Amino acid sequence: MATGEINVGLIGTKFMGKAHSNAYSTVGKFFDLPANPVLHSACGLDLQQVQALANKFGWQYSETDYKKLLRSGEIDLIDICTPNDFHSTIAVEAAKAGKHMVCEKPMARNASEAIQMYRAAHESGVINMMIFNYRFVPAIALAKKMIDNGKLGDIRHFNAVYYQDWLVDPSFPITWRHSKEISGSGSHGDMNAHTVDLARYLVGEFEAVTGDQRVFVKERPILGSNKKGDVNADDATSFIARFQNGAMGSFCATRMATGRKNFMRFELFGSKGSLSFNLERINELEYFDGMAAEDRQGFTTILVTEASHSYIESWWPPGHVIGWEHTFVHEISHLLTGIGQNKKVAPDFFDGVKCQIVLDAVARSSEDGKWITIEEFYRE
Amino acid sequence: MATGEINVGLIGTKFMGKAHSNAYSTVGKFFDLPANPVLHSACGLDLQQVQALANKFGWQYSETDYKKLLRSGEIDLIDICTPNDFHSTIAVEAAKAGKHMVCEKPMARNASEAIQMYRAAHESGVINMMIFNYRFVPAIALAKKMIDNGKLGDIRHFNAVYYQDWLVDPSFPITWRHSKEISGSGSHGDMNAHTVDLARYLVGEFEAVTGDQRVFVKERPILGSNKKGDVNADDATSFIARFQNGAMGSFCATRMATGRKNFMRFELFGSKGSLSFNLERINELEYFDGMAAEDRQGFTTILVTEASHSYIESWWPPGHVIGWEHTFVHEISHLLTGIGQNKKVAPDFFDGVKCQIVLDAVARSSEDGKWITIEEFYRE
Amino acid sequence: MATGEINVGLIGTKFMGKAHSNAYSTVGKFFDLPANPVLHSACGLDLQQVQALANKFGWQYSETDYKKLLRSGEIDLIDICTPNDFHSTIAVEAAKAGKHMVCEKPMARNASEAIQMYRAAHESGVINMMIFNYRFVPAIALAKKMIDNGKLGDIRHFNAVYYQDWLVDPSFPITWRHSKEISGSGSHGDMNAHTVDLARYLVGEFEAVTGDQRVFVKERPILGSNKKGDVNADDATSFIARFQNGAMGSFCATRMATGRKNFMRFELFGSKGSLSFNLERINELEYFDGMAAEDRQGFTTILVTEASHSYIESWWPPGHVIGWEHTFVHEISHLLTGIGQNKKVAPDFFDGVKCQIVLDAVARSSEDGKWITIEEFYRE
Amino acid sequence: MATGEINVGLIGTKFMGKAHSNAYSTVGKFFDLPANPVLHSACGLDLQQVQALANKFGWQYSETDYKKLLRSGEIDLIDICTPNDFHSTIAVEAAKAGKHMVCEKPMARNASEAIQMYRAAHESGVINMMIFNYRFVPAIALAKKMIDNGKLGDIRHFNAVYYQDWLVDPSFPITWRHSKEISGSGSHGDMNAHTVDLARYLVGEFEAVTGDQRVFVKERPILGSNKKGDVNADDATSFIARFQNGAMGSFCATRMATGRKNFMRFELFGSKGSLSFNLERINELEYFDGMAAEDRQGFTTILVTEASHSYIESWWPPGHVIGWEHTFVHEISHLLTGIGQNKKVAPDFFDGVKCQIVLDAVARSSEDGKWITIEEFYRE
Repeated sequence: MATGEINVGLIGTKFMGKAHSNAYSTVGKFFDLPANPVLHSACGLDLQQVQALANKFGWQYSETDYKKLLRSGEIDLIDICTPNDFHSTIAVEAAKAGKHMVCEKPMARNASEAIQMYRAAHESGVINMMIFNYRFVPAIALAKKMIDNGKLGDIRHFNAVYYQDWLVDPSFPITWRHSKEISGSGSHGDMNAHTVDLARYLVGEFEAVTGDQRVFVKERPILGSNKKGDVNADDATSFIARFQNGAMGSFCATRMATGRKNFMRFELFGSKGSLSFNLERINELEYFDGMAAEDRQGFTTILVTEASHSYIESWWPPGHVIGWEHTFVHEISHLLTGIGQNKKVAPDFFDGVKCQIVLDAVARSSEDGKWITIEEFYRE
Repeated sequence: MATGEINVGLIGTKFMGKAHSNAYSTVGKFFDLPANPVLHSACGLDLQQVQALANKFGWQYSETDYKKLLRSGEIDLIDICTPNDFHSTIAVEAAKAGKHMVCEKPMARNASEAIQMYRAAHESGVINMMIFNYRFVPAIALAKKMIDNGKLGDIRHFNAVYYQDWLVDPSFPITWRHSKEISGSGSHGDMNAHTVDLARYLVGEFEAVTGDQRVFVKERPILGSNKKGDVNADDATSFIARFQNGAMGSFCATRMATGRKNFMRFELFGSKGSLSFNLERINELEYFDGMAAEDRQGFTTILVTEASHSYIESWWPPGHVIGWEHTFVHEISHLLTGIGQNKKVAPDFFDGVKCQIVLDAVARSSEDGKWITIEEFYRE
Repeated sequence: MATGEINVGLIGTKFMGKAHSNAYSTVGKFFDLPANPVLHSACGLDLQQVQALANKFGWQYSETDYKKLLRSGEIDLIDICTPNDFHSTIAVEAAKAGKHMVCEKPMARNASEAIQMYRAAHESGVINMMIFNYRFVPAIALAKKMIDNGKLGDIRHFNAVYYQDWLVDPSFPITWRHSKEISGSGSHGDMNAHTVDLARYLVGEFEAVTGDQRVFVKERPILGSNKKGDVNADDATSFIARFQNGAMGSFCATRMATGRKNFMRFELFGSKGSLSFNLERINELEYFDGMAAEDRQGFTTILVTEASHSYIESWWPPGHVIGWEHTFVHEISHLLTGIGQNKKVAPDFFDGVKCQIVLDAVARSSEDGKWITIEEFYRE
Repeated sequence: MATGEINVGLIGTKFMGKAHSNAYSTVGKFFDLPANPVLHSACGLDLQQVQALANKFGWQYSETDYKKLLRSGEIDLIDICTPNDFHSTIAVEAAKAGKHMVCEKPMARNASEAIQMYRAAHESGVINMMIFNYRFVPAIALAKKMIDNGKLGDIRHFNAVYYQDWLVDPSFPITWRHSKEISGSGSHGDMNAHTVDLARYLVGEFEAVTGDQRVFVKERPILGSNKKGDVNADDATSFIARFQNGAMGSFCATRMATGRKNFMRFELFGSKGSLSFNLERINELEYFDGMAAEDRQGFTTILVTEASHSYIESWWPPGHVIGWEHTFVHEISHLLTGIGQNKKVAPDFFDGVKCQIVLDAVARSSEDGKWITIEEFYRE
């Protein structure tokens, strides 16, 4: 690693590959970093697609074999944006190669894979980060701060939904996301992974869960064929939860929520106040202050665009709203600062494991029809 | 007046006649009054319609000649719900007959008529009230209280709109409301009367205005005929204003606001805080507290349904929302209390005159194309 | 029953007694009925309170012994607004006395009591109605109509919450609502009863449920004493559900939702469209039309105040919003029409039983930690 | 100009300089352009600040003398982000030097300066663009498309406000924006420039205006001194307008709207439908379709993040919201495409002049107290 530079190797060049590419190429323009990222190598299965991304975002090298990135002496940081079934293989190898790592969620197809990844990273001592980018929404950072400052009191309820609707259309073709073998799960790992992580971040550890998973459209057309393929990854997963601190939780992730595009809402009720957030209105946090004067209480829509709010000072003046992609810039800024200063970052692979254990328990409860107690897992 | 009873004579039995009938028959069930209303006589041009209303709401007598009500020794209170061109005639006669009075807005077709009414009431010493029922929305009562307590600081802006859309359809037939001769004006007297009164209530007296009036649909079908009649009462009136205390005002009333049914919104900005209100969400007041902690500021949606809010204790528990008709119950409760205790009430005919003077000035400015200074008028 | 009159006997004179009294005294003013209600007798434990209510609303007789009402030859309709533990006793006796009946929710403390009530009413052939008044919100009537017309397609999700916060304060004294013995349950029977009924009304029958119940504040002050009493009725109950038609459900009722006063929201997602409703904005229904032009799709806030919407024509012009209490007027109008025309009404005691069976299953699942299949129950 | 490259010279390196820098460095990553921008030279008065910006965004050269940019044979495009009093001088010189040009709003201090700029650009034949970036909000592009397609019918009302609150604090120090001599005006040129341009874009040309301007805080501290300086640029400007097509307009720009940060809202009412937009919810457009089924009409919140919406396909999937800065990327994409294909762009300097003429008329009307007819100005 050249002083002040971090060479990045990106594996996976589709939706998330693009979002991460944008983050690496933007972060240094708005944030002061101890070390700036260099877009060294992008890697994907389809060379033409890799090169297109590389041309747009300035990746220096385009590769189709991820092992070349792991072997490269120049690359400092491996960024994993592949389908879920590759996460653990790549991560374990990258750890052995001494690369710092960042991995998209869900961490893996199951907790067992995730634990392998965690252990490999832990043993090699590399800096590792999970992309749970909604922790880096300024409104959610504010929620966290307010909770930590006691503004909410004891938390009693955390009710979260994540609604999308891109699978309502039964002619939407089958992809790797519909195969449990490749993805581990459907809406559950893709969307509940976010809300479970936020629950851990804002409320605390889970104690037990019971849930229900459903495939509504059981077969879908295979692109470029006139056949259909079987869907076995869930279209929707709902569950209820108990937290160790006594709070109750409710979760619903679905890709069948007609009309909701990327609607992730949580409602958090505490003994002193409450919060509500909706990702489609990413710049806003709803806060009820139970300690305010009685006749003036209500939910306050905080427009989280003030210089006093996390990350905002780097961007624009108050009211000049930011978008979804900014969350990646914030998280990558945190990662690069960690690597540059050789400090651990959060959320890391441990958080990824903890999240995956909850997801697995929900899936098992859905099969068994009863509550599953969350297994303990400790930081080594 | 029998002890503890107030005999009411209602003149005008259409939309407002119904709303007032409901108020008289409801108020005693929810409010403790020094004197309960007796629904003595209802009067309108169409006897069948009067009788129908009387049957529904329990008016003891149905009349078609309002003079009979004025002559009745039993009737204590005359309630004027007729078209605008009758207001002054009836009110002046009622005052001479020593009747207490309540009058629907706009007070009259013009300030000159309104002043006659005010003087007649003043001379006879009867208790008189204008129906500016939106002062009696609990959310607006709260706004007033907060302003009086200094929570808003110096008021700089009062921007109000009143949007309806029932005249968008060009086949909507012509009524008395489309004739300046009968109504004095269209949207202006009907809707700006409310917002001008609220401006006076919440901000203070007007200094000068300049406005613009428009008839968009210049002729309309005559019901039961295949002819059309000319419309000369405004479909829409916009104006800007200066207040004596230095605040700026903006107003727009229109019956051409496609999609808005009874949308009266004001936004009030002060040096310490701000308010926003929308009549279609009558139970809510938006309040921005500029003195709150910087990172938690925002507009608070106060659900104005707490026992600590005006009028609410008489109704239901928190969150059990009230509707539009309740504002009349509140205002009639205030009136009956005033009559029962022989105390003046507000808003009264003086307030009606002050409002009408502003409305007249706007209309004249629209013709003259320049600012009109509001004439002084003093309480006698 | 005198021709065109229905003599009502009300048992229970607190919150619901007041709401029902208002409905009986208002309904005839706005709705054309085959038979008008006569407020014959009100009955409660505290004579002074009964008389106060009677004075306000015009009940002719004040009683403290409900059996006198059942024995009265004049009374046609018994209205049950007592605490839950009295419902079944009164209803069974009233049925035997041949009285028509209306009962507040929850129907009883448990399904066994509810079934007794249903059977008694069925055997005596009296008209019977459950107060599930939210079916009579015009916005929800519209939702039902749209579902029946196929606008929503196949329903996949029904997610409902009912949030109140009046038990957040630990110094709020203990009442009968905190005792399982009297109330059967806390938030569950009081609030989930509504959402379970709406789920049956809008989605269809339940297949299975699994839930979680919690008492957060385990003892509360006894009013007029310096002791505390034990709370055993749930502060909060969450559950997930499967419907017979394959839809998934999620429910949460809590009195610990700081800042939410009477916030009952459901979100219903179908294959063709979606709906969302919030009781605190009772005049609005959110509708997503998945069949609309792609670039103009979105959730439409329907202000349900048009003459073409159920019940509205009886009230006011568009945009003149109604309140919570109006739902009782609508339901009572439906009941009186049924009695006057000797026709069955809905929801009736059968619906009450079906709802209670679901509630009981949730409670048992919370103890057993597993899914409970909803027992079949058929209309006799 | 090297094939496929456009060398940019930026003059002005503060808020807008940063926003434009971001646009140039981002646009090529998301949009396919005939010619990519090269960040050639940045120029500002304070070399250190220029260099800081250049380091962040990759400007190759840092300058303090703008004339060097105009003389440079390499620079193709001059981007003017200076205080307003420099716009005309730089633009006229740049036109003479044959540079393409883009200029921040307001175009100049007054129409006379703006016309000089327009004529200079016209004579030299360079491509010229005004930054009215809100035309490039996807939601507003959709509004424009719907209006052009006749979805709104005849437009009757365009009511726009632009609310900010950064001058509420009287200790906020004086800047060039408070001096009429430098800025031409305060809130008026800064904020009404946007809404006037949108009015022209969406409704059509203005016919006449009458307005009111106000300085609420008449002196402000001079930074780094214990003296105060006089403010003569307006804190707030309200006006009403008539459009040539008969529509009525209302406008209010203020920096005294406590609690509103960058709240630009317009409401547009047509004979067939209506629109409402609020910049703080930049991804949403409210649309009322007056042609929809009567009982399902309402304002639809269109989340303008579909691939079928303008500009969106280049970014992210539905519901992954964009921010304020994206509007510049869209407009710069349009400009670079124009330059690359040698085609005119819009809005151009003619639009800037037309806007400035309206602004000037409002200012004059505020002094004269009467309506001012908008002077004709024709494209040469």
